Amino acid sequence: MTTQTFQLDGLTCGHCVAAVTAEITAIAPSAQVAVELGEPSTLTVTDGPGLTDAQVAAALDEAGGYTLHA
Amino acid sequence: MTTQTFQLDGLTCGHCVAAVTAEITAIAPSAQVAVELGEPSTLTVTDGPGLTDAQVAAALDEAGGYTLHA
Repeated sequence: MTTQTFQLDGLTCGHCVAAVTAEITAIAPSAQVAVELGEPSTLTVTDGPGLTDAQVAAALDEAGGYTLHA
Repeated sequence: MTTQTFQLDGLTCGHCVAAVTAEITAIAPSAQVAVELGEPSTLTVTDGPGLTDAQVAAALDEAGGYTLHA
């Protein structure tokens, strides 16, 4: 089992979580994807393809203008 | 032209706005429905059927646990 975690900015509600989860699942369909709301929020990708920061950042933008936590 | 406005609590992002707009449109399909994000947020229903607070509160709950501003 491999696990990647990413810190995310800009998520404020359950709809944000759902939007980000959907976009990450779209680029890592075989992975388990979990997003925990917080400041920053945390994205956990288990058994994924090995996502790069750039891939995640692009998916976050697609989901609605969210960003990787600096 | 008739206009009703309601003050709403709990909306935090554009997804919240979309969810509330969709639920209010569902109960007032012939109306123009606008939601402006704020604290509180403002719902404006133009040329609607004359919504009661209870109808709006039920739609807000359906949209995701939002409430009328006290």
